[in-house]
Amino acid sequence: MLAEDAMVERIARLAGTDPRVEVGIGDDAAVLAGGVVLSTDIHVEGVHFRRDRLTPAEIGARVAAANLSDLAAMGAEPLCLLLALGIPEGFEDVDALVGGVASHGVALAGGDLSRADSLVLSVTAAGSAERPVLRSGGRPGDLLVVTGPLGAQAASGYTAPIVPRLAEGAELARMATAMIDLSDGIATDLRRLAAASGCGARVALTGLPVAGGATPDQAATGGEDHELLAAVPPEATLPDWAIVVGELTGGDAVSFLDSTGQPRDLRGYDHFA
Amino acid sequence: MLAEDAMVERIARLAGTDPRVEVGIGDDAAVLAGGVVLSTDIHVEGVHFRRDRLTPAEIGARVAAANLSDLAAMGAEPLCLLLALGIPEGFEDVDALVGGVASHGVALAGGDLSRADSLVLSVTAAGSAERPVLRSGGRPGDLLVVTGPLGAQAASGYTAPIVPRLAEGAELARMATAMIDLSDGIATDLRRLAAASGCGARVALTGLPVAGGATPDQAATGGEDHELLAAVPPEATLPDWAIVVGELTGGDAVSFLDSTGQPRDLRGYDHFA
Repeated sequence: MLAEDAMVERIARLAGTDPRVEVGIGDDAAVLAGGVVLSTDIHVEGVHFRRDRLTPAEIGARVAAANLSDLAAMGAEPLCLLLALGIPEGFEDVDALVGGVASHGVALAGGDLSRADSLVLSVTAAGSAERPVLRSGGRPGDLLVVTGPLGAQAASGYTAPIVPRLAEGAELARMATAMIDLSDGIATDLRRLAAASGCGARVALTGLPVAGGATPDQAATGGEDHELLAAVPPEATLPDWAIVVGELTGGDAVSFLDSTGQPRDLRGYDHFA
Repeated sequence: MLAEDAMVERIARLAGTDPRVEVGIGDDAAVLAGGVVLSTDIHVEGVHFRRDRLTPAEIGARVAAANLSDLAAMGAEPLCLLLALGIPEGFEDVDALVGGVASHGVALAGGDLSRADSLVLSVTAAGSAERPVLRSGGRPGDLLVVTGPLGAQAASGYTAPIVPRLAEGAELARMATAMIDLSDGIATDLRRLAAASGCGARVALTGLPVAGGATPDQAATGGEDHELLAAVPPEATLPDWAIVVGELTGGDAVSFLDSTGQPRDLRGYDHFA
């Protein structure tokens, strides 16, 4: 298990429960009674982005996109965003940063400001879903599909725009048994979906869609693509754009097979390794 | 106007609107259709707290309390918290920090983790309110009441525990025309309530309840007390614990009168001055 996932498990044990919280820590977003879906992301200068590689508007757009992608992975429709901002002395481009956060057409409904040593953005997205799709509903035999080519972020040095797959997530929600957004690479995130579903999985690396300019390894292990990975029953009628990359299996082994059919040991990015 | 409030006004102009967002930037919390209330706070090491003065559990409890206080100021009942955490290298007390956030009996429903240069906590609270109380409903003649003595935080060097006034907020919500939580001192926050309500205000400094150990100036200008300030019609039957400190007036002048009846120019803390 990744160090980050172990920390999340520890935190979940301290979190307490409430009958009005239908889904808590451990999925892409929390689900409250009534179908309100909530997700928080924190992006820190020097960890998630560099100010010499991205404009303030691009930084704001990236954080909001990553956050909206968590709603997409639940099949939720966004309602609004909240922005908590830590601003270093001398940083003058707050308007551009905020403009970037608001650039996805989702209203910014509130926030908070503080001084900080480095630029920090924490965005919370609220949405609604009639039938939120969790990570945990996958079954052996379900097909694994992704919403687009992988590795674009790693290939771009994490500067390519992130597009939250909201429409695709809503469409997949009508058929998917489980869904997750690919924030840490399919090698990591498929393990999370499979473990939550109590399944194994098998993916042929030669069948992964590789983004232009990316290597096959970047497609398998690169972070921050924010395409969606869904498990769908084999009898489902898939949308044209859905790309089948593998299937869920019995057991608990998650295998990435190379062109000779041999399993390869692949790991995505671990923030706390 | 404070530099921080000017920045909030600029951000509000960039925020976009949505008919499902009934109250957006500029109040203690956002209100969505259906009475869902959302608020975000960010606390940064060296700005809001010092690790040599507070334990990790105390830091976590403070951030969550400040955030829940925003719900209290709307008369809302908490549903859950989300926690975005920036963790510096070598910080080992994540469990204690999270335990502190969860110490108010409100379930932690989700979050995100990142490395960061200094400790950063951003907490988002979700709640519900049948009739959320805004800052903007006050009328000339309304009495101004607070929920407890002021200045305790300044007197303690910002280490005294913060108690979110959730029960008091819910009770005041039945009668209040406007409400705000005192995060930056009554000298600042009363101006915010009065401006939002299109009123002036008059407060006798000698009538302010001063917390044990605090000076009268700390009671008027000290930040982070998180008592509630509400405007209530003069005919309302006040709870026993409510302390009347002044009244809303016509015009737009907000006056703090000293023992001789002369106005004093008082300002609370401005994070961005």
